[in-house]
Amino acid sequence: TWKGGPELTHPDGWRFKVRGRLQIDAGTVSSPRSFSDTGLGFSNEIRRVRLGAEGDIPGGFGYRVEAEFADNEVEMTDAYLTYGKGPFGVTLGQHNNFQSLDELTSDLFTSFMERAAFTDAFNFERRVGLSAGYRQGAFMANVGVFTDDISALTDDGNNSRSIDARAVWMPKFGDTQLHFGASGHLRDFGDLPGARYRQRPFIHSTDVRFIDTGALGATGEKDYGLELAAVHGPFHFAGETHWLQSELPGAADPTFFGGYAEAGWFITGESRGFKNGAWDRTKPLRSVADGGMGALQVNLRYDYLDLIDAGIVGGKQNGYLASLIWTPIAYMRLGLNYGHLVYDQARALPDGRRDYSVDSFGVRAEIDF
Amino acid sequence: TWKGGPELTHPDGWRFKVRGRLQIDAGTVSSPRSFSDTGLGFSNEIRRVRLGAEGDIPGGFGYRVEAEFADNEVEMTDAYLTYGKGPFGVTLGQHNNFQSLDELTSDLFTSFMERAAFTDAFNFERRVGLSAGYRQGAFMANVGVFTDDISALTDDGNNSRSIDARAVWMPKFGDTQLHFGASGHLRDFGDLPGARYRQRPFIHSTDVRFIDTGALGATGEKDYGLELAAVHGPFHFAGETHWLQSELPGAADPTFFGGYAEAGWFITGESRGFKNGAWDRTKPLRSVADGGMGALQVNLRYDYLDLIDAGIVGGKQNGYLASLIWTPIAYMRLGLNYGHLVYDQARALPDGRRDYSVDSFGVRAEIDF
Amino acid sequence: TWKGGPELTHPDGWRFKVRGRLQIDAGTVSSPRSFSDTGLGFSNEIRRVRLGAEGDIPGGFGYRVEAEFADNEVEMTDAYLTYGKGPFGVTLGQHNNFQSLDELTSDLFTSFMERAAFTDAFNFERRVGLSAGYRQGAFMANVGVFTDDISALTDDGNNSRSIDARAVWMPKFGDTQLHFGASGHLRDFGDLPGARYRQRPFIHSTDVRFIDTGALGATGEKDYGLELAAVHGPFHFAGETHWLQSELPGAADPTFFGGYAEAGWFITGESRGFKNGAWDRTKPLRSVADGGMGALQVNLRYDYLDLIDAGIVGGKQNGYLASLIWTPIAYMRLGLNYGHLVYDQARALPDGRRDYSVDSFGVRAEIDF
Repeated sequence: TWKGGPELTHPDGWRFKVRGRLQIDAGTVSSPRSFSDTGLGFSNEIRRVRLGAEGDIPGGFGYRVEAEFADNEVEMTDAYLTYGKGPFGVTLGQHNNFQSLDELTSDLFTSFMERAAFTDAFNFERRVGLSAGYRQGAFMANVGVFTDDISALTDDGNNSRSIDARAVWMPKFGDTQLHFGASGHLRDFGDLPGARYRQRPFIHSTDVRFIDTGALGATGEKDYGLELAAVHGPFHFAGETHWLQSELPGAADPTFFGGYAEAGWFITGESRGFKNGAWDRTKPLRSVADGGMGALQVNLRYDYLDLIDAGIVGGKQNGYLASLIWTPIAYMRLGLNYGHLVYDQARALPDGRRDYSVDSFGVRAEIDF
Repeated sequence: TWKGGPELTHPDGWRFKVRGRLQIDAGTVSSPRSFSDTGLGFSNEIRRVRLGAEGDIPGGFGYRVEAEFADNEVEMTDAYLTYGKGPFGVTLGQHNNFQSLDELTSDLFTSFMERAAFTDAFNFERRVGLSAGYRQGAFMANVGVFTDDISALTDDGNNSRSIDARAVWMPKFGDTQLHFGASGHLRDFGDLPGARYRQRPFIHSTDVRFIDTGALGATGEKDYGLELAAVHGPFHFAGETHWLQSELPGAADPTFFGGYAEAGWFITGESRGFKNGAWDRTKPLRSVADGGMGALQVNLRYDYLDLIDAGIVGGKQNGYLASLIWTPIAYMRLGLNYGHLVYDQARALPDGRRDYSVDSFGVRAEIDF
Repeated sequence: TWKGGPELTHPDGWRFKVRGRLQIDAGTVSSPRSFSDTGLGFSNEIRRVRLGAEGDIPGGFGYRVEAEFADNEVEMTDAYLTYGKGPFGVTLGQHNNFQSLDELTSDLFTSFMERAAFTDAFNFERRVGLSAGYRQGAFMANVGVFTDDISALTDDGNNSRSIDARAVWMPKFGDTQLHFGASGHLRDFGDLPGARYRQRPFIHSTDVRFIDTGALGATGEKDYGLELAAVHGPFHFAGETHWLQSELPGAADPTFFGGYAEAGWFITGESRGFKNGAWDRTKPLRSVADGGMGALQVNLRYDYLDLIDAGIVGGKQNGYLASLIWTPIAYMRLGLNYGHLVYDQARALPDGRRDYSVDSFGVRAEIDF
């Protein structure tokens, strides 16, 4: 079979596929009140470029390894083994720790160039761990214990650890797919305390952050989130809320909050792909190779992030986002993205103002195999 | 089909191929007037080791991603998407910006271990950009706008930009393939001025440079080149000239110059591969697997580089090069290379002399897939 | 054919296979006499994650390139070309320089998580070089000249060099496979003297070393080793001794020594794979995919390393190791490892004691393709 690239199989149950992706970005961020920073204005980058492989091994085993080479550095993303039997599954290695619907959706299938502001701000990332999953009908649950990511583990004094869990109920009522999810996370930084919560103005090719708690001496984190989504014909809705409490020794523990609500419409009539408690690939009804125009999708999102609590004033960001995504053929997308970001108590400008707004605009071309 | 490695295709128009190459070098550089430097004498290295993938997507799309791992570091080379329709094509991402015939020829098909001295000296490299191409019969033209390479773009204050264009006319008169090319390049370094022009004594495993302008506070560059080539039976000729004007604020703008003329002969009767305005793979008439001796090619080149102008004294290099390349079977080459390099007003030796010569000798074994 | 992943071939004699492996480790090291160090206690890591390719080219040629991405860094392991004709073979590029049976055995086939203590302590590694091999019946010999590894060669002043040789006689007497080997190595560090000999307490996810000579101003090394192994039905035995003399200018040259003896038993009846003078893959008689329980192997090893001689007091390590390895199906293994390590004249603890012991425990899950 062909999935962007060839997937090879053997009658005994072996499967092998080379994996890769390429995302090319450009964008602009306006200057609030003529504030000057090298990261404002136009910027561009190769957002992601990955090579890897995945496969199945007879007996219920599987694996995925994938390396990210953006910025001309190596960062392993997935590096895990799996075992599955009936409704049960186990995953060992570096993998996602069940943070949120938006984070668990592949960046190839998200409705905007960048995920909800809270996902980066709360430092969601893949970590090395062992997790178990259960899936029966419309119910799915995962729970795992994790240490840290591959880079952080090069310090053999890193003894951070977390327990992470998520449950999803995704019933189908008539033609409407629903998704209800909840996740909880408890993390102890061990002997290496410290955390920082911040976020870019929507696009990633800039390194400017207008909201930022600065470095905090956090010794751990508790966070939990709620997820709601629905697909009905060419329409979809998704919304999430996520709370993160940062444990500060000798001080009140601040709780930061983020969330979003989005709605999308496939003008060309497709229905947004959804599988296993996350958004999945949407194939055009008539691709350009079939003489059609591919799939055209419009999305609107309100994205909120509040990094102010208990004396920590990292700022608030209200994001009003819109995207137009063209999928000429499956495994390829081009997207236009716009964000109007309104800041409160954010980074002070030279004139002392901390309430202002910026406009971000971004384009992405991407393929995967 | 098999192209060094397997190329897999799907009837709908999909194509996928894993790419890679390995080049293993060793060489020597003689010491001018007994000058001692750790980079002189014998040196060796893995010159290039790459892994990547390329493919086609139905509807006229394509992609290539390739990572270079020489020196145990990552450097993405090609990372681009393409679209083609009839004579028109578009390329988006990191790719070559149409600098010169020698630079645009894959290092797998060049007639010497290293390209003409001006190509490195003038800092030719792949950059992220968007370009358009047109090809009709013997005429081909490309024009593009580029920012910078992937590493340089990690600085979000990098706002350098260039416009690059090249036109080629490659008529065939009887049995003789001709190539006439011209390219022009205009680059603005934006807020990050600075450039340095220098070159190694032919082989790459040393880091010694006898000619070097040192760091200049350049704010931009204009460069343009002319190309001429011909293939007739087992013989080929190629010549190029390239001028680079470096814009120095508050000083006269120096114009540096490089060029070469080369002639080659396939003793075993092959005709040098040529395609789309660049040198291409040459397959032996009778490979060693067919009981033959493969292809044997001799090449001579005069290679000139002048880094002296308008008060900048980087030195001049006159290179007299010879190579013998054995291609036992397509996708594999072994090369012997010799260079006699004569320097004027170059790096001063301890005795104060700036005019001297060195001899370089290099061998390379390479495969690709 | 399928070898963990698909191996593609062409009737003309071409062969191509994508290669990769993933090893996920966790372990603990006990604290000697309540000594505290961040590397003691629990630690975990992605031990190895590799992607690469290998192939054959008609006419007797072949190649392998493989990149290691553990710790989110690139380190090329194999990067070589081969040529073979009848009993003769040549290898060019970065490859193993015939150090010892344990080192030459792929980490996918070793009987413990980590190789014998002397292999790391004596800095065995792949280096760039040219070697020749001869294999006739039960006799095999290799000899080569090498410079340094890819990272070290980025310094063009690196002119270290070595000559390395190994001979093996591996007769089969009835049902018993025997292996007798000897290797010798002579290395000159050239203009970059300096060496350090040390070793971890068995598992690799910690960076603690209790034995360590510290940095020595060595100008070269002579080392040589003896190898003995046998396989009879489900039983195997292996033993090696290795001496390394470090050349210290202006001082007596210390000779360090390491060795081990191990015995193993496949409870499930398999016979340990052995090929070309090294341990090879063992396929379960009845894999879990065939309704069996896979292969179960127990191993015991005594592992000795003495870094004390001629006034250099790096310490001694006596290791008593046990492992249990489950191979549910070929190309996949899970291992439990225990080591009791007894130290003499080792790193001084805060109370001044230099004789103590630690217990190490390690688990590994691994797949390759």
